[in-house]
Amino acid sequence: MKLSTRHILSIEDLTKKDVMLILQTADSFKDISERPIKKVPTLRGRTVINCFFEDSTRTRLSFELAEKRLSADSANISTSGSAMAKKGETLLDTIRNLEAMRPDILVIRHNVSGSPAQAAEVTRAHVINAGDGLHEHPTQALLDLMSIQEAKGRIAGLKVGIVGDIRHSRVARSDLLLFKKMGIEAFVGGPPTLIPPGIEEIYGAKVSSDIREVLPELDVLMALRIQRERMEQHYFPSLREYARHFGISTDMLKAAKDDLLVMHPGPVNRGVEMSANVADGSRSIILDQVTNGVAIRMALLYLLIGDSGNE
Amino acid sequence: MKLSTRHILSIEDLTKKDVMLILQTADSFKDISERPIKKVPTLRGRTVINCFFEDSTRTRLSFELAEKRLSADSANISTSGSAMAKKGETLLDTIRNLEAMRPDILVIRHNVSGSPAQAAEVTRAHVINAGDGLHEHPTQALLDLMSIQEAKGRIAGLKVGIVGDIRHSRVARSDLLLFKKMGIEAFVGGPPTLIPPGIEEIYGAKVSSDIREVLPELDVLMALRIQRERMEQHYFPSLREYARHFGISTDMLKAAKDDLLVMHPGPVNRGVEMSANVADGSRSIILDQVTNGVAIRMALLYLLIGDSGNE
Amino acid sequence: MKLSTRHILSIEDLTKKDVMLILQTADSFKDISERPIKKVPTLRGRTVINCFFEDSTRTRLSFELAEKRLSADSANISTSGSAMAKKGETLLDTIRNLEAMRPDILVIRHNVSGSPAQAAEVTRAHVINAGDGLHEHPTQALLDLMSIQEAKGRIAGLKVGIVGDIRHSRVARSDLLLFKKMGIEAFVGGPPTLIPPGIEEIYGAKVSSDIREVLPELDVLMALRIQRERMEQHYFPSLREYARHFGISTDMLKAAKDDLLVMHPGPVNRGVEMSANVADGSRSIILDQVTNGVAIRMALLYLLIGDSGNE
Repeated sequence: MKLSTRHILSIEDLTKKDVMLILQTADSFKDISERPIKKVPTLRGRTVINCFFEDSTRTRLSFELAEKRLSADSANISTSGSAMAKKGETLLDTIRNLEAMRPDILVIRHNVSGSPAQAAEVTRAHVINAGDGLHEHPTQALLDLMSIQEAKGRIAGLKVGIVGDIRHSRVARSDLLLFKKMGIEAFVGGPPTLIPPGIEEIYGAKVSSDIREVLPELDVLMALRIQRERMEQHYFPSLREYARHFGISTDMLKAAKDDLLVMHPGPVNRGVEMSANVADGSRSIILDQVTNGVAIRMALLYLLIGDSGNE
Repeated sequence: MKLSTRHILSIEDLTKKDVMLILQTADSFKDISERPIKKVPTLRGRTVINCFFEDSTRTRLSFELAEKRLSADSANISTSGSAMAKKGETLLDTIRNLEAMRPDILVIRHNVSGSPAQAAEVTRAHVINAGDGLHEHPTQALLDLMSIQEAKGRIAGLKVGIVGDIRHSRVARSDLLLFKKMGIEAFVGGPPTLIPPGIEEIYGAKVSSDIREVLPELDVLMALRIQRERMEQHYFPSLREYARHFGISTDMLKAAKDDLLVMHPGPVNRGVEMSANVADGSRSIILDQVTNGVAIRMALLYLLIGDSGNE
Repeated sequence: MKLSTRHILSIEDLTKKDVMLILQTADSFKDISERPIKKVPTLRGRTVINCFFEDSTRTRLSFELAEKRLSADSANISTSGSAMAKKGETLLDTIRNLEAMRPDILVIRHNVSGSPAQAAEVTRAHVINAGDGLHEHPTQALLDLMSIQEAKGRIAGLKVGIVGDIRHSRVARSDLLLFKKMGIEAFVGGPPTLIPPGIEEIYGAKVSSDIREVLPELDVLMALRIQRERMEQHYFPSLREYARHFGISTDMLKAAKDDLLVMHPGPVNRGVEMSANVADGSRSIILDQVTNGVAIRMALLYLLIGDSGNE
């Protein structure tokens, strides 16, 4: 079985069949990280370069562990996009130079939307988008979907609410595309200034100014991370105000189904997007998301360049 | 043989028997680094994450080489504690997230005392304290003890002097606890402002305002690193003054036993804590300390998660 | 076959026979990076520490991939020379400390000329100079030579022009020494303020104020990177002026031989040292230089510490 795409740039590149294949593969790889010997020789001698032109300890580490557990040779670069620009080097020149060192996969995070797609045009390596600007973060959406399926036992027909800064969230964008593709009904809520227009048309998601209105119907409630700088940009008045109106509390969850799941892409601002007892509570699968992140990344690395890879 | 503890947080966690086991194991591992092929498959497929929330090139490298020579998968993170705090993420959330990626061991350095112990409470991984605030640096104390035993052929009954900034030294704290446990008689000296009260009661060490008074009896003289910022905080007037009163010189060592050893946890401020010819002289075992550091860390990794590990 | 030197500090350390051996070995290693499984067990269990006391993503990555493809254990340190100085630690103390951890090879980049040579005096490890101040960058010169030989099928008797900031270029210095040793006739051009006196005497290179004068005779034209800070130091008036007089354009190349090669050590300031269509054109072997860099570094690592190494 192979993927229909040679790069993972956007959820839009993936067919429904691709997504199912990724979830199945991730499920079978997940067990490796639970063993004492967390390593298989699958990608021995393959070279993966993690190009984090924007800082990210946890996503970089998740990829690095996925690579090492598959026995790939893994190397990191972390020059910021702005430092490169200052040296007069374009992203494409950097990518062409990396390509000349013969990587099999380039994992790319960049603060400019579309950078991984541009990179993919000038390299024979496979490119995985690890988050680009305000565009997408497809591996996060895939690990979210895996976590939902794992906890619920099914995907199609579920109802998922997403609360927070939809406007600036590449996670939300990838999630909404993936949920639509897989038959999940999505609802979004949050400060009106942080919900972009056209979201119903583009993603088929329903907008609620107050997620509480739809809460009783939801199977999953996902909060997005609030970046403090948005407050300074006057998208919302204060963290406290935000927490009061949009933060998830145990009290609010009384209206939810008994088996509602709570998710967050991390890191959580405790007391802002949700209270500490919600984050740590029995409904929360936040840490399962992290665990599944390693498995999803192992699956993608394998499907792109393993034995059944589409070279 | 197993350790009585699942974490290496403080010297206080170790029994005398643990310490002897660590020294024996380190001794047998030391030879690996002296071979052309410096690698054994012992920890193949195990994941160790070196979490240096405070900068440290040499300790991080010592752990990393220990891990690689035992064939573990080794990854580094180096976000500073203050950067994490700024992002609104608590240390415990970071640790829970790392835990979700299934590391076998977390090596943690942090500028806040007690951080590794807190981390150990929320993870199934084994935690090794690589230096926490003003609290402890147990692997340094163990490598110091190994170096003393190696050079002297024995431990109990030796007399060791420690000169310098006792107050702010986690190395001194771990050394004093370990020396007391192992029957080494300790003497401390240095500027009175840099010797905390109660040191005799807590550690059983004798305080000398002038280490020269006890020098003729000593088997080992260890200098601590002076941090220049202490001068600005008025703990002592100038580096020159410090060097004159507390720096170790060849002249001063004329009063010492012929086989007195000189030690320093590094990096040495030459001409401050000791003169260059003392640092490089025949009494100095400073570089043996560094070599033994790799062996001690290999031993701890092995004893925590190797075949005989206490999982 | 062995090298006549235990360190790669300067092109001057290498005999003509050494250079031929390095080129042959690199040629045989180059194929490894073109395979799906880019890895051989040659240096399994050997420790290489990449000490980049001056920033360099691409050279560090080239060495790191070379090391990993030979199965060596590879670790990086990146403290800047100035940060070390601030902590009161000398380079030699740092090197002695690294040495105590038993590396087989230290790859050293430093902004102070002569640092790798100094380091070599205090360590049993083999030292490879990865660029030191204004002195040399021998592995770059070797990869340049390999790229020329590969494209031309021969070395001796070729004519190579170098245009740009000869004064501040360690690449130019190593290239000129190597070209002289190997019977390549060198011509240098560029702003008169950027061509140091004595270049004809020392390197046997001919100086042209305008490289166009000799262009029709040349087999290779190499541009050096212009650092913007040189402009602020008044070595030349503006990037635009520089580009107009010394930049390589397709128009200018009409006067060149049909098989003239264009080279650049990277990263290229497009529109300054050369136009974009020259950099990307059919004469350009800039990316082959990068590919050959990995092969040259694999060859050096192998020749220094592999089976036929000169330990």
